[in-house]
Amino acid sequence: MPTLLVAPTAPHERLVCAVMAGGSGTRFWPLSRRDTPKQLLKFFGEKTLLRTTIDRVAPLCPPERRLVITAERLRDAVQTDLPELGAGQIIGEPAPRNTAPCMAIAAIVAEQMDPDAILVLLPADHYVADAEGFRRALTLAAAEADTGRIVTLGVTPTQPETGYGYIELGDKAANGVHAVKRFVEKPDLKAALGYLQGGQHLWNAGVFVLRADVALRAIGAHVPVILGALAPLRDGGLRYDRDDFAATLWAAFPHCPSVSIDYGVMEHERDLRVVRLDAGWSDVGTWQSVLGLKPESAPNFVAGDVLALDCEDCVLISQGPQLAAVGLRELAVVATEKATLVLPLDRSQDVREVVARLQAAGRDDLL
Amino acid sequence: MPTLLVAPTAPHERLVCAVMAGGSGTRFWPLSRRDTPKQLLKFFGEKTLLRTTIDRVAPLCPPERRLVITAERLRDAVQTDLPELGAGQIIGEPAPRNTAPCMAIAAIVAEQMDPDAILVLLPADHYVADAEGFRRALTLAAAEADTGRIVTLGVTPTQPETGYGYIELGDKAANGVHAVKRFVEKPDLKAALGYLQGGQHLWNAGVFVLRADVALRAIGAHVPVILGALAPLRDGGLRYDRDDFAATLWAAFPHCPSVSIDYGVMEHERDLRVVRLDAGWSDVGTWQSVLGLKPESAPNFVAGDVLALDCEDCVLISQGPQLAAVGLRELAVVATEKATLVLPLDRSQDVREVVARLQAAGRDDLL
Repeated sequence: MPTLLVAPTAPHERLVCAVMAGGSGTRFWPLSRRDTPKQLLKFFGEKTLLRTTIDRVAPLCPPERRLVITAERLRDAVQTDLPELGAGQIIGEPAPRNTAPCMAIAAIVAEQMDPDAILVLLPADHYVADAEGFRRALTLAAAEADTGRIVTLGVTPTQPETGYGYIELGDKAANGVHAVKRFVEKPDLKAALGYLQGGQHLWNAGVFVLRADVALRAIGAHVPVILGALAPLRDGGLRYDRDDFAATLWAAFPHCPSVSIDYGVMEHERDLRVVRLDAGWSDVGTWQSVLGLKPESAPNFVAGDVLALDCEDCVLISQGPQLAAVGLRELAVVATEKATLVLPLDRSQDVREVVARLQAAGRDDLL
Repeated sequence: MPTLLVAPTAPHERLVCAVMAGGSGTRFWPLSRRDTPKQLLKFFGEKTLLRTTIDRVAPLCPPERRLVITAERLRDAVQTDLPELGAGQIIGEPAPRNTAPCMAIAAIVAEQMDPDAILVLLPADHYVADAEGFRRALTLAAAEADTGRIVTLGVTPTQPETGYGYIELGDKAANGVHAVKRFVEKPDLKAALGYLQGGQHLWNAGVFVLRADVALRAIGAHVPVILGALAPLRDGGLRYDRDDFAATLWAAFPHCPSVSIDYGVMEHERDLRVVRLDAGWSDVGTWQSVLGLKPESAPNFVAGDVLALDCEDCVLISQGPQLAAVGLRELAVVATEKATLVLPLDRSQDVREVVARLQAAGRDDLL
């Protein structure tokens, strides 16, 4: 907590941004592969989603206050993508344990960076059209978080999405901040339509803003086993930028249970707050959602060396072989040097089946 | 003509098979490219269409009686594909001049191989399911040709095809051979339906069987300029297997007009004969026609490293990148190392447009 003896620092100047970049999804195969998961893909030009996520918060968060928590095997790739980060600012988890242990590590490191840190936990692989709008929401959330509350960002729904979690709004507090009535799991279509019309539900964007000490208090209260497992990271003056931090983490981390922030922490908290985000947000969850990110005037989402004749509402991506598409509707065609995928956008989920088949067939060369 | 002083040789033992392999079509882009036209593609396993064409007639025609007439720039590729042929048996045309000059060269060389040769002129890039049925038709045609008539093969139509030329049947002669009433150009759908129901029209398969001397007589009668231009190939004891044959051809060939066998010769001939071919023939003209060549029990035409889930009536070909296709209907997906094409089969003709666009864009690397 800032003391009154020094000039108080504005909350948004005390942010530490921790990007959760451990995902290893297969939904964007063949673009995403074991060593290039979604957060390391360049959907929109030259930058990875991870780089774009960092750049989005950069004006609020100088390099020394950034942190990326990823899978150990992706550490080198992340370091290449984010050369401005010191080695201690890229933390490789030795095994997947979902997001709650990740939040604990982030809070421990943030507190080591700045005892008064306000932690921003961010997914590495989302899309936001209006970066400035995003930063405005974060600034508002930081002020609210400085009071000791946990703040989340909620996106105004634009369609009856059944793939997202929702946040039900409670009473309005000051500054356009709402209380959170409850978190709602992925709804069915009927419920999603109701949420869309009712105006009382926002999409859970998976972004959390809270003081580092509040984060540690909440984890200690709801999943103390995590804090117990990670205690060696706080012992004896150990710091994230010391050489022995990684080894200590490797020894401690496997003892963490696999728990998500939502299940493990947020659902047990009262007095949560939500800041509304209207900035063209997408979780970029499937090929279908990628279509939604095309420029409005464009008939298709196109990236790479593509010739499209009379195609509409298609996702056409080439990374390698030239792609010629004629007369297609609502199709994804994704060509890489190793593999080509063609499927209707409304069957985007079936990429999993493709990957499972390739796995079963021992086609590790393609995964 | 065989004399009565030596034991007469059966007509089908005097065949010289000349394969016309000069095509440079773009309808199978990206599989077919400038240096690998359709006849050099391996649609069906390990053999090119050209190799398959040669092998189909092999039991009737030993290596020394085979001849391939192709474009000069394809000569090396043809030689690699057909190593059993001597250099003189692969003739490279220095420029495209359609098929009538090709027929003239074939007749000249056939006569040099065997003064009593019965020439078989074959397209290099067709498909025939029943090779033995094809050879039976050739044997029948050879006997008929031995009488001095020109014989063509006609395929019983199985659909109202508007992309083929037709042969209207005249009176029936002996041995299941018919007279040809006339050649009919590509009909409209209504006419094609009438032909299909009427039973008096066969598809023109572009295969001609005739004595070499008859071929030279017919060309001399109807397009004498070709015979005049190529006269040096017959002068002073020159033969196809001499080193100076190619240079003589190069000097003479450009003086030939560009004329097809059908227009230049056949339409002016009377007393033509046709032998019916019911052997599962296709000209393999478009991606759509390739679908027709799949095994009946298979849902798709598949070649190469392809994973197809819930696809029907598709042509799925990979030569290079692995291809994963999900939930597709009546689509062609063709993946090579350089390019991937995706288009509905009923728009197979639009491949030309793709190639034209790439050409206009200077993408010679893809053509």
